[in-house]
Amino acid sequence: MASTSSLTLSQALLARAISSNGSPQSSDHRVSLSTPSFSGLKLTTLRSSASCRALPTRPNRRLRVRAAAVETVGTAADTSLVEKSINTIRFLAVDSVEKANSGHPGLPMGCAPMGHILYDEVMRYNPKNPYWFNRDRFVLSAGHGCMLQYALLHLAGYESVQEDDLKNFRQWQSRTPGHPENFETPGVEVTTGPLGQGIANAVGLALAEKHLAARFNKPDNEIIDHYTYCILGDGCQMEGVANEACSLAGHWGLGKLIAFYDDNHISIDGDTEIAFTENVDERFKGLGWHVIWVKNGNTGYDEIRAAIKEAKAVKDKPTLIKVTTTIGFGSPNKANSYSVHGSALGAKEVDATRENLAWPHEPFHVPEDVKEHWSHHIQQGASLEAEWNAKFADYEKKYKEEAAELKSIITGELPTGWEKALPTYTPENPADATRNLSQQNLNALAKVLPGFLGGSADLASSNMTLLKMFGNFQKDTPEERNLRFGVREHGMGAICNGIAHHSPGLIPYCATFFVFTDYMRAAIRISALSQAGVIYVMTHDSIGLGEDGPTHQPIEHLASFRAMPNVLMLRPADGNETAGAYKAAILNRNTPSILALSRQKLPQLPGTSIEGVEKGGYIISDNSSGNKPDVILIGTGSELEIAAKAADELRKAGKAVRVVSFVSWELFDKQSDAYKESVLPAAVSARVSIEAGTTFGWERIVGSKGKAIGIDQFGASAPAGRLYKEFGLTPEAVVAAANELC
Amino acid sequence: MASTSSLTLSQALLARAISSNGSPQSSDHRVSLSTPSFSGLKLTTLRSSASCRALPTRPNRRLRVRAAAVETVGTAADTSLVEKSINTIRFLAVDSVEKANSGHPGLPMGCAPMGHILYDEVMRYNPKNPYWFNRDRFVLSAGHGCMLQYALLHLAGYESVQEDDLKNFRQWQSRTPGHPENFETPGVEVTTGPLGQGIANAVGLALAEKHLAARFNKPDNEIIDHYTYCILGDGCQMEGVANEACSLAGHWGLGKLIAFYDDNHISIDGDTEIAFTENVDERFKGLGWHVIWVKNGNTGYDEIRAAIKEAKAVKDKPTLIKVTTTIGFGSPNKANSYSVHGSALGAKEVDATRENLAWPHEPFHVPEDVKEHWSHHIQQGASLEAEWNAKFADYEKKYKEEAAELKSIITGELPTGWEKALPTYTPENPADATRNLSQQNLNALAKVLPGFLGGSADLASSNMTLLKMFGNFQKDTPEERNLRFGVREHGMGAICNGIAHHSPGLIPYCATFFVFTDYMRAAIRISALSQAGVIYVMTHDSIGLGEDGPTHQPIEHLASFRAMPNVLMLRPADGNETAGAYKAAILNRNTPSILALSRQKLPQLPGTSIEGVEKGGYIISDNSSGNKPDVILIGTGSELEIAAKAADELRKAGKAVRVVSFVSWELFDKQSDAYKESVLPAAVSARVSIEAGTTFGWERIVGSKGKAIGIDQFGASAPAGRLYKEFGLTPEAVVAAANELC
Repeated sequence: MASTSSLTLSQALLARAISSNGSPQSSDHRVSLSTPSFSGLKLTTLRSSASCRALPTRPNRRLRVRAAAVETVGTAADTSLVEKSINTIRFLAVDSVEKANSGHPGLPMGCAPMGHILYDEVMRYNPKNPYWFNRDRFVLSAGHGCMLQYALLHLAGYESVQEDDLKNFRQWQSRTPGHPENFETPGVEVTTGPLGQGIANAVGLALAEKHLAARFNKPDNEIIDHYTYCILGDGCQMEGVANEACSLAGHWGLGKLIAFYDDNHISIDGDTEIAFTENVDERFKGLGWHVIWVKNGNTGYDEIRAAIKEAKAVKDKPTLIKVTTTIGFGSPNKANSYSVHGSALGAKEVDATRENLAWPHEPFHVPEDVKEHWSHHIQQGASLEAEWNAKFADYEKKYKEEAAELKSIITGELPTGWEKALPTYTPENPADATRNLSQQNLNALAKVLPGFLGGSADLASSNMTLLKMFGNFQKDTPEERNLRFGVREHGMGAICNGIAHHSPGLIPYCATFFVFTDYMRAAIRISALSQAGVIYVMTHDSIGLGEDGPTHQPIEHLASFRAMPNVLMLRPADGNETAGAYKAAILNRNTPSILALSRQKLPQLPGTSIEGVEKGGYIISDNSSGNKPDVILIGTGSELEIAAKAADELRKAGKAVRVVSFVSWELFDKQSDAYKESVLPAAVSARVSIEAGTTFGWERIVGSKGKAIGIDQFGASAPAGRLYKEFGLTPEAVVAAANELC
Repeated sequence: MASTSSLTLSQALLARAISSNGSPQSSDHRVSLSTPSFSGLKLTTLRSSASCRALPTRPNRRLRVRAAAVETVGTAADTSLVEKSINTIRFLAVDSVEKANSGHPGLPMGCAPMGHILYDEVMRYNPKNPYWFNRDRFVLSAGHGCMLQYALLHLAGYESVQEDDLKNFRQWQSRTPGHPENFETPGVEVTTGPLGQGIANAVGLALAEKHLAARFNKPDNEIIDHYTYCILGDGCQMEGVANEACSLAGHWGLGKLIAFYDDNHISIDGDTEIAFTENVDERFKGLGWHVIWVKNGNTGYDEIRAAIKEAKAVKDKPTLIKVTTTIGFGSPNKANSYSVHGSALGAKEVDATRENLAWPHEPFHVPEDVKEHWSHHIQQGASLEAEWNAKFADYEKKYKEEAAELKSIITGELPTGWEKALPTYTPENPADATRNLSQQNLNALAKVLPGFLGGSADLASSNMTLLKMFGNFQKDTPEERNLRFGVREHGMGAICNGIAHHSPGLIPYCATFFVFTDYMRAAIRISALSQAGVIYVMTHDSIGLGEDGPTHQPIEHLASFRAMPNVLMLRPADGNETAGAYKAAILNRNTPSILALSRQKLPQLPGTSIEGVEKGGYIISDNSSGNKPDVILIGTGSELEIAAKAADELRKAGKAVRVVSFVSWELFDKQSDAYKESVLPAAVSARVSIEAGTTFGWERIVGSKGKAIGIDQFGASAPAGRLYKEFGLTPEAVVAAANELC
């Protein structure tokens, strides 16, 4: 209400930058760049090997005044200081790798110029609060080059990377691990290293910004307004996941995603000529990106600046800035070769590089003027955040409801009583597939969780994942919450990791057939490692899918995720358990959850409950006393019904039978020993498990004397009922196994 | 020596085709097509929805004489018969899906024209010998449309698909499962269904042809000379694995790979507009492909023929023929919608489609003239094979040595005594990483196995996979055997599946870090299911890789593959075991093998042997008697050394200790009960296992009373030695655990 200005935050920042720097452009000093439709991309790529020994401080460059080609923030440095700063970055990387005798100096040496320009001139962040909500996001997709990012965080004043941290690069319990890990180093947004993941994460971060901006920005208050920057290398470019995610970024028109392609022509096996001769520019144009080529990424600072300016001007497409660089720039004998990619330079070559770049300083030294220059980011970051906080205060006054929603997305605090939205069922409710029951939960949750959004890899109508009250997130309707990923499972998972890491209150879900987790396993593992609470809605979870046959029937998948650290693998048996699975998934914000759901109808079983699911394993029926059943039957998901039927038979024959639903091994594992003993008493070794998947791992539950019924071979194409019979997943088989044991 | 003709087989076939068909081209009837440099691809894609109800037998088409636009083989049909045949294909698909009440009628209805032209006019095959070596290969990458292929195999006279098989579509033990499976249906080359795999398999098939042709063809005898055809859909196009493989196909210049892109604009979630708006043509041109657009794939038979002709004329690039079709063509109410993609039409719509396409026949009916026409393929196929056999006989006379090599590749018979090439070691040999020992094996095997070839996903110098006596397989050096896959793990695996399925004697290996099996798991699963004996050389197999940190350190991977059916998971401990692992891998031609290999040096242990590895688990040292050790220590790979050290300590303290190497669970599982008892006697419950990976699954081996030492969390970035200590993988830990148990 009290807002007196109609300037957006970004406009205000620009105005401030101009006033402190003079003209935002000194066009007479800019390297000429083609127009946005840029036609020079099909030329043979410029090879810059000849320039790899160039001294970075040529006199004619020293005299230049930096051209503030982009919306700069804060105080800019003159060119000689820029070069000094860039060499500081290079040598912090070289020295850290050298001290560790392990690491990747090549990328930081080549990418130092773009890194400097991004962190010193372009990006808006607050070093003292790495989690400031409206910060620009940066992703180093080529994660092996992490010393670039650590050096930049160090110069920028992040407390997470101090000189000692650089000296402890790649050591036990350091904050500077061998690849960037968000959970170790504040200032690192996501976890990269496995190639291609980072650019896909960046797509997710940019999607989140576009979505939140569309939902919350007002004509007089653009409260959400940041860019997502990414550096990716040749390796990332070759990975299919990157193509998947970039195809979606183009489709969605993520104009505030700006990716720098470090085009250095070297990968581990040598020149990229041996395996990578495609025309990347043409491919990206085909994917709907704006493409710019910076031919001299080593010393063409103004080229880089102009490219960023051009990229920002293109608002309806993501931009790929291909920056041709020399890997290991400055190293006289190793630059432009694979030998500088992933090994320390060695003392001799470090000396030679120091001489070549006229760098007389001790290892880890940051020259005073460089330090002094970068120091302004502390104050500047504080101002940026303070300004934004004021803006948010204004927003809160005028748009109370939206502000409350946004706040819960920013903080991750779940709305009070959200869990009351979860549906419950009684045995009188009709049988239904858990994929359908899942949809009831998804739609219930979307009503109460403002940060809940997601979708399927082209199987929405099979996975049952559409949110009925929302439309599709698309280029022109980014405020909607149904994401349409196309048949791109891997990209989907990695994009969801980016969404999850954008804001604590964004809760992305994504869906495909359970067997196709094989396509996205690398992304799921990053969810687990980087503590992203993505919800994986995986339907068609067994041979119960029937006719599609063994290519579509998961067998080993439950076991394979139970074996993966920090994953909640949930296999609910009916409506109550599906609701319980979602409750667990929502509550575990630092752990991804995988819900294995049935295609086929299942009855609402007596004894199931949300509370039971929260314990991972629990008794759904029991006619024994004194915690001494004759036999314990254990089932999960669609086979819990079979266990229950078998129990009925056995009880008719006079047995004392306990039926346990084992919906999540991980949740059960967290319970007290007393609780575990109350469900699976050590004295009862007569245990039979049944699950339509591999028996691998079930010995842990049924013990050496128990019996696990499952499928230790591939499935087959036939109607589901026939398959259950042929593969021996029947009440009769459970009864027979139980009778053998007790 | 006795060869009297310098005509190649393909030339001879062409000549024969011309003589039976008249002119190979009736250019006045050809639909005009652009020149090879074709510039019309950036136009908005023609949407053919308006034509979806078109009657396929328009009078003006009926009068046309078929234009023999391509190198046809055998007797061609006139257009009315062509259309009848195409409708036969459509209705065989419709009727089979209807009877099964399950399946995907849409693709076969839309792709029937290109299917007919391929199988009736273009492809060279012998229905009575689906394994004839020089056949053209066909891959239905959009495997859900398998009824297209079954209908074609049926018409062509393959014994695997008779009328009863069509009527048993998707039923228990039928030869017509829900997706194409090479192990169920002779005539199907590979196993598809999971999208994107097939086109990558096709790249492997085409690579194999190019490689073998370069090695074995002679100026006077081109003994290897076939094409690889593939149909892929929008779903395949979205998958990253397809982009990876197609980038390589362009790089390698696989000119005899011709892929048909069924551009029907419909995927499961509806119009591809919602998630797939990239310019596919531009992307493929960027990938180095020749691209042709057939605008009318529904009735433009001559367009299709002309496109194939053009594709064959382009010899240095693979060709993508984008064929715009209408999914479910002919169905008046469901064509061009997602509802026809994956469900039976329903009786009413089947009737309407019959009426619409003027098809009065009973279900499964093949009109006599269609039957009669297709029947010539039996004779023609026999002739093709006989001619080729004669050619091979000539070849054998002139090029005895090459013929013997080629024969072993064709038959898969391993050369006598090949296993003598495997190196063996004694404890006196220096410690070495198993990745290095692996390289000695790879190079030894390449000398004795003519079909052995492979490479790494840009980690050749880390995985140690280069064959030193060979150069790189490249566009201009296809006779070489080092494959350079770039950073494309998923594409690599799927391409290797194609290579393995090309010829029984081709033995492809491929390599990356073990953790990155996550990127290629879908391809590995297809290896296992489709019985492709690919060898996966997976180095850096634990936290022993050190500083690269948890993104690079496998934890759950050993367990995840032990849980997968039909996989040999091997983790050798030293040189002898590495040789043994390769021996097992080579011998198991219908099972993929995964070798987990260390980055770090390991000693050559006393007691290891190739023969031991063949049993999966075996005793390497034992000071007990009467098969009653006090404790059994079980290790794999790099931890076997730790188990051995712990045994030394325990023995010093007077214990009777057995040390078992458990290199492959699957091989151990195949041994007799007596053998198993001799290694792991049931009476000895004091068992300690140690493995630098998850303990998940180890209860099966150590039993309820044993103790599994491992890592059930993610790793960390630090030097390897430190990690082993911090994570408790030490002899001391094993000794302590053993002392608790005995």
